[in-house]
This record gives sequence, C-alpha cells and structure tokens, in this order.
Amino acid sequence: MVNKFGGWNDTIVALSTPPGVGAIGVIRLSGDITFKIVDELFPSKDLHGQSSHTIHVGLIKDGEESIDEVVVSLFKAPKSYTGEDVIEISCHGSPYIQQQLVQACVRHGARIAKPGEFTQRAFLNGKLDLTQAEAVADLIASNTAASQKTALNNIRGGFSSVLKKLREQLIGFSALIELELDFSQEDVEFADRKQFYEIIQLAQITTQHLLQSFQLGNVIKNGVSVAIIGKPNAGKSTLLNTLLNENRAIVSEIAGTTRDTIEEVLNIKGILFRLIDTAGIREHSTDVIELVGIEKSLEKMKSADVVLYIFDVNQMDAYELLTISRQFEKTGKKYMLAGNKVDAISDVAVKEKFAGFENIIFISAKNNEGIDAIESNLFSSTVNEQPATESVVVTNARHYEALKQVHQSLSEIKAGLDNHIPGDLLALDIRHCLHFISEITGDISNEDVLDFIFSKFCIGK
Amino acid sequence: MVNKFGGWNDTIVALSTPPGVGAIGVIRLSGDITFKIVDELFPSKDLHGQSSHTIHVGLIKDGEESIDEVVVSLFKAPKSYTGEDVIEISCHGSPYIQQQLVQACVRHGARIAKPGEFTQRAFLNGKLDLTQAEAVADLIASNTAASQKTALNNIRGGFSSVLKKLREQLIGFSALIELELDFSQEDVEFADRKQFYEIIQLAQITTQHLLQSFQLGNVIKNGVSVAIIGKPNAGKSTLLNTLLNENRAIVSEIAGTTRDTIEEVLNIKGILFRLIDTAGIREHSTDVIELVGIEKSLEKMKSADVVLYIFDVNQMDAYELLTISRQFEKTGKKYMLAGNKVDAISDVAVKEKFAGFENIIFISAKNNEGIDAIESNLFSSTVNEQPATESVVVTNARHYEALKQVHQSLSEIKAGLDNHIPGDLLALDIRHCLHFISEITGDISNEDVLDFIFSKFCIGK
Repeated sequence: MVNKFGGWNDTIVALSTPPGVGAIGVIRLSGDITFKIVDELFPSKDLHGQSSHTIHVGLIKDGEESIDEVVVSLFKAPKSYTGEDVIEISCHGSPYIQQQLVQACVRHGARIAKPGEFTQRAFLNGKLDLTQAEAVADLIASNTAASQKTALNNIRGGFSSVLKKLREQLIGFSALIELELDFSQEDVEFADRKQFYEIIQLAQITTQHLLQSFQLGNVIKNGVSVAIIGKPNAGKSTLLNTLLNENRAIVSEIAGTTRDTIEEVLNIKGILFRLIDTAGIREHSTDVIELVGIEKSLEKMKSADVVLYIFDVNQMDAYELLTISRQFEKTGKKYMLAGNKVDAISDVAVKEKFAGFENIIFISAKNNEGIDAIESNLFSSTVNEQPATESVVVTNARHYEALKQVHQSLSEIKAGLDNHIPGDLLALDIRHCLHFISEITGDISNEDVLDFIFSKFCIGK
Repeated sequence: MVNKFGGWNDTIVALSTPPGVGAIGVIRLSGDITFKIVDELFPSKDLHGQSSHTIHVGLIKDGEESIDEVVVSLFKAPKSYTGEDVIEISCHGSPYIQQQLVQACVRHGARIAKPGEFTQRAFLNGKLDLTQAEAVADLIASNTAASQKTALNNIRGGFSSVLKKLREQLIGFSALIELELDFSQEDVEFADRKQFYEIIQLAQITTQHLLQSFQLGNVIKNGVSVAIIGKPNAGKSTLLNTLLNENRAIVSEIAGTTRDTIEEVLNIKGILFRLIDTAGIREHSTDVIELVGIEKSLEKMKSADVVLYIFDVNQMDAYELLTISRQFEKTGKKYMLAGNKVDAISDVAVKEKFAGFENIIFISAKNNEGIDAIESNLFSSTVNEQPATESVVVTNARHYEALKQVHQSLSEIKAGLDNHIPGDLLALDIRHCLHFISEITGDISNEDVLDFIFSKFCIGK
C-alpha cells in the first residue's frame, strides 16, 4: 500500500505495552507483509483468509521452536489504526517471550518500529491530522482529569474542527476572489467583503481565545511548580506533609507513578502541583530564607511558577513581613503568604499583629487548619483563566506559535480589507493565513518537523 | 454461569498489562455481567449482540464523561480464557486512564480481581488443570529459553499427559479389581497381575525420571547462584567484567530486566547464573579469602550453588592451593579453580608449578583467554542431568513433593503384588496412589492450596 507520501510500506513491529513482567503483553505489526509474517509464525490457521476485526487463538512457532500460546487480533487495511494491515499479538507477559516474538517477526521480514512510528503512519495515511496525532502522545502522558479530557477531545478532532471551519471559510472566500480575478476586466465583486470582514473578525476572536487558552493548557499539560520556602521551624515540612497526606490517597491510586513522584505532587481539582526541591525542605537544612538572603533564595526558586512563603505568626513581625512581601513583589513572581502556628496565639492577637495585610492565609499546619484555603489559593492563583471555546484548549507549544501567526495574518487580511486592497493581494494574504493553519494540522509539513514530533512518542504507538 | 465449584460468578476486572506508561494498556473483565458492564460504558454499539472473537472500536463513556477511545475484544463463554464471558479493553497507555477505566467498571458492578483470579477461574471452570495453571505463572516469569520451553510445554499439558496416562492405567486396573470383588465368592481374577506389575514398574521408572528432572527443573526455574571468590588482586573483578561483557549483549536484549539484575546475571546456554555479592567483589574490599579465613568466607557463601575460586598463578604455590582445595572438598560444595594471569608466565612453567592438579582452568581474564572454559564448566558442573522423559521437566516444588508420594505409593502397590495381598487391599493402595496424582493435577484440591498457588500470580492474569 502506498500512502500519500509514498514508500513507507515496509512492515514494522514493536512491543506496545509497557516493558516489564505482567499478565499479558501486546506486540503490534503494521505494513504490507504483516499477514505474511504472522501467517508464517502461526501455523494453525490461515490468518490471511480471516475477516478483519476477528480474534484467533493459537501457538506461535518459529520453525520447530514453540514460542508462546497467543491471541491475535486482525485489522485489515484500511480499517486499522495506521490504515495499513495491522496485527496485534497478545502474549504472556514475560519480557523474554516478548523479545523472542519481536525477534521472530524481524527474522520473518519486519523491522523494529521507531518511537511513534505507528501513529506517524496513521497521520501519513490520513487517518489522523497532525493535531490528533500529537494528542495521542498527550493522552498517553495524561495524568489528571484535565489533561485526559483535553487530549481526548483533541484526538477526537476538537481543535482540528475549529481550524477546519476557519480554513473552509477562508478557502470559500478565496475561491470567490479568484473568480473575480478571472473576470477582472468586468470589475465585478463576487466576494462579499462585508460578510468576509465579519468572518475574519469572528475568526480573530476565536484565535484570540485559543491563544489565551494556552496559559490554561500549559498548566493542564505540565502542571504548576510550587516552591515552599520559609525560615527554619516556620513549619515547611509539616505543611508539606499535611498537603501531601491529604492528596496521597488520590495520587497513589494512579498505578505506575513512581513513589518519588507521588511524594511531591498535589492533585488539586485535576491540576498537578509539583512541589520543587522537596527533599531540601524535608531536611530542614536548606531553603533557609533569611531576610537578607531573600534575593538569593528567589534566585534558587526561579524555576517555580508560584512561591508559597510560610512563616511562624508568633516569630514574624509585621514590619519584617512587609519587607519580605516587597521583595516578592519586585520579582514579579506569583507568591502566597501562609501564616503558620495560629494554634499558639489568639485570633484577636493575630488579626491585630498583621492588620495591614490582606493576602495572608492563616493556618495551623499541625492541626490541619487552613489547608483547604492554601489549596484553593494555589489553584486560583495559577489557573485563573477559563477556556473560551467550550473545551478546546491549546496545550501544545507548536500549536501556540503557529496560532500566533494565524492570528497575525488574520489582522493583515483585515487591514487589507480596511484599505480596499486589490483582490489578488487579498488572495495572497489569505493563502498566507491558510499556510499557517495547514502547518498546525499537518496538511503542510516537513520531514524534520514530523520526525521531531513523533520521536517524543513511546515505542509501539 | 455456575462453575463446577459453584458460586464464583461475580464479574472481576483488572489491568492485565504491566503498570506504567506505554503505547497501550489492556483491561480485562470476566464473569456473568461482563457484557452488561461494558455495554453500559460503550454506547456506540450493542456488544451483547456481536459475535464472540470480534473486535470493536469506540468511545468509553461513564455517563457524560468520555474516558478513552478504545478497542474491545469479545470472548463469549465458554470460548474464553476463563470459560466465562470475557472482554478485553485495549486503551491508551496512560496509568491515569487505565485507573479511570477500572474504576468505571467497578462503579458498574465489577470487582477488582485478586492476583491470578482469571487463571484460577480457568482452572475452576475446567479450562486448565492445576499443573497447566501453575505453568502460566512460570511462563510469565520465564526469562530464558529453557524456562520458557519447559513452562510452555507444561501449559500445553506435557506434564499432565504423563500423569493422565498413569492415572488411566491405575483406574483401569482398579476397575477390574473392583469387579473381582463383586465376584469374590467365585475366586476369579479379571485383573492380570503380571501385566499390572509391568505397568507399575514402568510407572516407577517414569516417576523416578520425573523426580530426577527436578534438579534440572530447579536450575531452569531458579538459575544457579555463583560466588566468585579469591584474594585481593587475584583478578575477581576483571573476570567478572569479562564474563558479563560477553553476556551483556544477550541479557540486555531482554527488555524490562532491571539494570542491576542484568549486571549480575550470566545466561549460559539458556540457564541463568546469578553472581552473588557482586558489589563486594567490585569494590575489592570484601571477599578477601586468606588461607586462614577460608572457612569464614565459605560461611558467607553458603547461599551459592557453586563457588568459583580465582587465584593468580604467579602468586599462588601448589601447596597453598592444595590446602585451599581440601578446605573446599570438606564443605561438599561444588567449586571450580581458575588460575588467572597465565599471560604473565610461560605455559611450561604453569604446568610444572601445578602439575598435581587436574581441575584447574587456566585463564587470562585480562586477555579474555579461557573464559569459554569457565562458562562451559559452570554449566556442566551444575546442569549435569538431562531430562529423562523427552522435554517434560518438573520445575515445581509442590509437584516434586507429591511425585515423591506417588513414587512411594507405587512401591507399596508393587510390594502388595509381590506379596499377593487380597484385591480389596490392593484397590486401597491404588486409590492412595491416585489421590496423590489428583493432588498434582488439582482434581482433588483444597481452597487453601489453591489460594496459595494463585496468590503468587500477577494481578490481571
């Protein structure tokens, strides 16, 4: 089978399930000689003669050597993930057996797949556009409700459909302009400029919303990094443990997350907050933020999206806190102030002491008081924008950059309309805009970009 | 559906692929309401109305929440692994999504499966006997050609068929004896004692061979532990590295083996040799075996199946080596002597120096000389027995213990025949023997034994 780029029709094989021992493992093949290869290894039945989307149980043998009793699932082109002939071999979950099976497929003519090569073929064969293909990797990497929802929506063409609609409108108008050019002697206007102007304005609102959604999208995809800082004995590690204990039950339900990671991640309303440099905080020995050393500490925390400054309300005086706050303000970094150990002081005394401050969250880390407020503030201070277009959120930096260019070129079209530029120049601006849209969806793409995108995938997808 | 033990018909669910991020993950359900549960989650098609062994693509939704685009494989009872209705859901390989899918199944009426519960159901529903079910776990754990071959042969009923044949012969003879008892007044012998005596003799040869195969079976299943010991600078770490480098290419091909493990494992002709206490050897600081301290070193190495003692032929004299050898002999442990650094001395000089010794392997670890001889000696000194019955090897300690009792009860039957004991007593001995055979195959089993066996399985198998 020749895809639209031609020549990609060798047969690839890879283990598609995670490496390691499990009940079962799945080995996937795709390409022209998929059925030939598996038929040679599966003597009990002629798989080529079976229907697509059927399942067959039997023994995999390479010559006289029995390798495993397996279940094979058949997907005939074009009704498969890649659009090519695909067979999935479900075997016993021994890494040794999986390796033997992959090697047997290679001996019979398959090639080991590169990372993401199955999805790359799906894209090249027109089964997915590029934003959908990229969303496959995002879905596999998704670890929260928000990231799963966004990625799944994009796989199902959520983002593509917005772009497709815009593209169709631009192409429709462009066609009318081309028609005008054919009748240019007659000075007619087939293309309704006013209507098109409105379309462009609406398109700009859409792209603006999409661009704005990237802030949220980035948070959804990459989480938020939080630095908890404070003087020794301010209660950093107690706060950390209180925050994590509340979350552990939720986070640890996600099988396969390493324990190290679990211990440093908070899941607040589906967004992951990563606590950076936690080990240091636990040891009590580093992250000592003294008044004079605040700049230095901030330098160290420049990778944080937000700083959570915790202090002991009994030890801190209002003047010192004001000085510290001003230092934070100067950096422009988002910060939160948490006044700890309110259990050791009366409410009245605290209120009086910090009367001038409106942004302190008072807590008792020890008694689990005020922790909800810390969480909701962490969430609202970083996830402050809501997605504009219902559930379409831009999470991909490549899309964001291209969208900026789409938005810019829409401005140019609008300016052209404002200035009543000739139809042929207007058509040029529209083609320019279409180019950037096509870059996002992959209708125009170069091999380097594709290789870069798919190299970040897992093997076997 | 009610299995032969009754009442196991609730529906179980588990992730069957290894935990962690991968291209795909597979979630398996088995039980009466499997189709009801998945139909509730898979709105695009009525799965209940589809044929067994077919594949369907669609969206999993729990209420309004879309979870993933999946591929479902249908297996209708009794044509499934467990003998019950089974559905496998192949989803994107995100641990978060897998967890969401499992939880959705639970919300709709499934229960999280216990380790090995799918295979336990296959056994309880008569799809596998107990030796086959146990071989499933062995196959998943197999990490060499030998362990894979043995386990696969046992899944396919290799061991069972030997036992089944013996069982049939015993039952056949037993039936004739029972017949005699019905006609006991008439003093007839329907059962040909002479022929039966020959059957018992042959059966004893078979069980003897099976019992002997356990030494090999144990080596195949558990590998051989090797302690490399020697004085400082004898060349322990050089030998270790030379051995491992030769093997690394082979061993590291097995995906999912942890790096730590790879570094301490030799695969020689399909048998794994584990080098114990390797870290110590690498550090040069421990495992110093001085002449006076040999007992102490041996104490430390008592967990080794074989000791490889390496010495510098230039530093060692024959008398000292003789003393060391005698110490090894006394312990009864298998040991090998490796005379290292032959590159620094002439062949003639070495031969002269150690003229009295026949069991030294002379090597130059540095120059990779004699390493093949080390490997073949390691192999032949530990894997010295060949399987008697073609390719049936006992690898399971439970089977070994029960086989010993089968063998013993065969002796009792033979003694009874020798002593011409009455038919009713003979029948009792035969039933005794049949009992032990049935314990192996699981025709007789108690819940504790089953729970113990299946608790060692992976989740999802």
